[in-house]
Amino acid sequence: MSNPEFTPACPIPIQQYPHVLLAHGGGGRLMHQLINRMFVAAFNNPLLEPQHDSTVLEVPSSKLAFTTDSYVVRPLFFPGGNIGSMAVHGTVNDLAMSGARPLWLSAGFIIEEGLPIETLWKIVHSMQQAAQASGVRIVTGDTKVVDKGKGDGVFINTSGIGVIEHTLQFTPKSVRPGDAILVSGDIGRHGMAIMAVREGLEFESTIESDSAPVAGTVHALIEAGLEVHCLRDATRGGLTSVLNEISESAGVTLSVEEQSIPVRSDVRAACEVLGLDPMQVACEGRFVVFLPAAQAERALEILKQQPGGSAAAIIGAVLDERPPRVLLKSTLGVQRILDMPSGEQLPRIC
Amino acid sequence: MSNPEFTPACPIPIQQYPHVLLAHGGGGRLMHQLINRMFVAAFNNPLLEPQHDSTVLEVPSSKLAFTTDSYVVRPLFFPGGNIGSMAVHGTVNDLAMSGARPLWLSAGFIIEEGLPIETLWKIVHSMQQAAQASGVRIVTGDTKVVDKGKGDGVFINTSGIGVIEHTLQFTPKSVRPGDAILVSGDIGRHGMAIMAVREGLEFESTIESDSAPVAGTVHALIEAGLEVHCLRDATRGGLTSVLNEISESAGVTLSVEEQSIPVRSDVRAACEVLGLDPMQVACEGRFVVFLPAAQAERALEILKQQPGGSAAAIIGAVLDERPPRVLLKSTLGVQRILDMPSGEQLPRIC
Repeated sequence: MSNPEFTPACPIPIQQYPHVLLAHGGGGRLMHQLINRMFVAAFNNPLLEPQHDSTVLEVPSSKLAFTTDSYVVRPLFFPGGNIGSMAVHGTVNDLAMSGARPLWLSAGFIIEEGLPIETLWKIVHSMQQAAQASGVRIVTGDTKVVDKGKGDGVFINTSGIGVIEHTLQFTPKSVRPGDAILVSGDIGRHGMAIMAVREGLEFESTIESDSAPVAGTVHALIEAGLEVHCLRDATRGGLTSVLNEISESAGVTLSVEEQSIPVRSDVRAACEVLGLDPMQVACEGRFVVFLPAAQAERALEILKQQPGGSAAAIIGAVLDERPPRVLLKSTLGVQRILDMPSGEQLPRIC
Repeated sequence: MSNPEFTPACPIPIQQYPHVLLAHGGGGRLMHQLINRMFVAAFNNPLLEPQHDSTVLEVPSSKLAFTTDSYVVRPLFFPGGNIGSMAVHGTVNDLAMSGARPLWLSAGFIIEEGLPIETLWKIVHSMQQAAQASGVRIVTGDTKVVDKGKGDGVFINTSGIGVIEHTLQFTPKSVRPGDAILVSGDIGRHGMAIMAVREGLEFESTIESDSAPVAGTVHALIEAGLEVHCLRDATRGGLTSVLNEISESAGVTLSVEEQSIPVRSDVRAACEVLGLDPMQVACEGRFVVFLPAAQAERALEILKQQPGGSAAAIIGAVLDERPPRVLLKSTLGVQRILDMPSGEQLPRIC
């Protein structure tokens, strides 16, 4: 990947149009200029060329994964990423969670009138860099502009298509007693990177988001012949939400050990200042793995070798206990039920 | 289709949660309740069941169409439809423009805090009805909530996948001199339905949006063995924008006759009141057809038999003239160049 700090000059003449106007979404001349000079130029690929209502794709497998996510993160730029790079990573990662090889993305922009064109360009350029690093192409898009005060800079939706080229079935229903639970790296960095900026917290070092594509890591697990039962990325609601979702869907009890859950000390400190539980804080480049306990050590070894994976850990086990619930054994050895968070803590972190 | 006026009772207890809260987007308990009770219940289909990060699809053809659109229409409800039905029709129609049979949609909601839950339910129910009528399934989704004053009720993104089961290539580059230009019905109704509500215009009868799925009409043209060169739906920027886009992409001159362009008298009257040109006003269920002139009468016959197609018309021809441009012969016989609109006239009509 080229230097992520460097953004080439904005391809729209910003002296003439310093800000996005309502007319940039009106279907006329200005919209076509924005699409052609900025989006088509940045996302440059032959599938985007025809600029027709939809893009025609030749699929190399009859089994596809399909997903969508809208991104409304505030602020638009944060340490370790921005709404554009995140909109690529998040959707690519959702595809990877089905064991798919991500191939194509759509990009839908809802822009608030008045957004500096140069800000939009930085975001678009960053999306292209993230797409390249993730091995996907942005093949179709849409631009809407809403009046000032009816949006918040820019919201981005990306939908993604990936191909599934193996016979494993990654679903919560495959999770069963005897499975080990692993996490692919340290948790809580993305949410705390955002919150630190919003709350103006200063630490010795800046907390950077963990936003990154994880499809390569998933591919490495599959390539190694591991019998993965389920993967789930820990985004909104954090690890706590993932564990509760899987417990409920699979109808199994999950038991995790607090002291084995990797949290960096700066993240833990920031959480303490804000009264947050790191287990409820979103990641954007971390996922949870369920697979037979006998394969846990081998999986851990692979995870640790991947980018961002040095802190990967085996954090618990799936138990044959009813009713299905999530149990957390604290560092003091006390076991308690870990409930689903209500969802009130961290608005707009993705 | 069941009665579009009837909406069953809201499945979320609205005494308890009359409005959408930020926590409904937070990844926790409230979000899961909203997703399970409202979205999964309404869009009820086996592909949505696993509620995993992405949905796995078996594709019946190796050639797919993929498209995306965000919908920011204001007001959310208008005569003839609402943002929900439109979000289905618009994306299904974009797929149909590639000659694809629409199969699957994603749905991404960006909800403004404070939106009445019952309003959301009406929209969601209407999406489901539109999906059913269009022969597509909503198979994956996403919900985000933004703070009050940072959105406008609700924005919806839908992305769509369709399969292409024929060997025709519908692209602007296939358009050539000798082609006839047809329109699939009367134009300008959707835009004027919206503007009439916004401006509080009163006419003898209400102008209803033409929002409707057109995949069936496209299928009828293909089934008849017609050598269709290109289709394009006339949405933002209206017929004028479509003609200019195709002229530019194909490098050909298009000549159309004003008197042959079907515009209902109430739409024309409303346009006159607001100083708008019906040719620049958006439709949501009309498209332009390019095919060899020898097949134009047969195509017209088919278009007229389709829902909403009674006013379908042959409106012009593709000429071998340079430079490429769009020529409009007025009712008085005067020919002028029809330029791309700047896009300033009609914000947020889709």
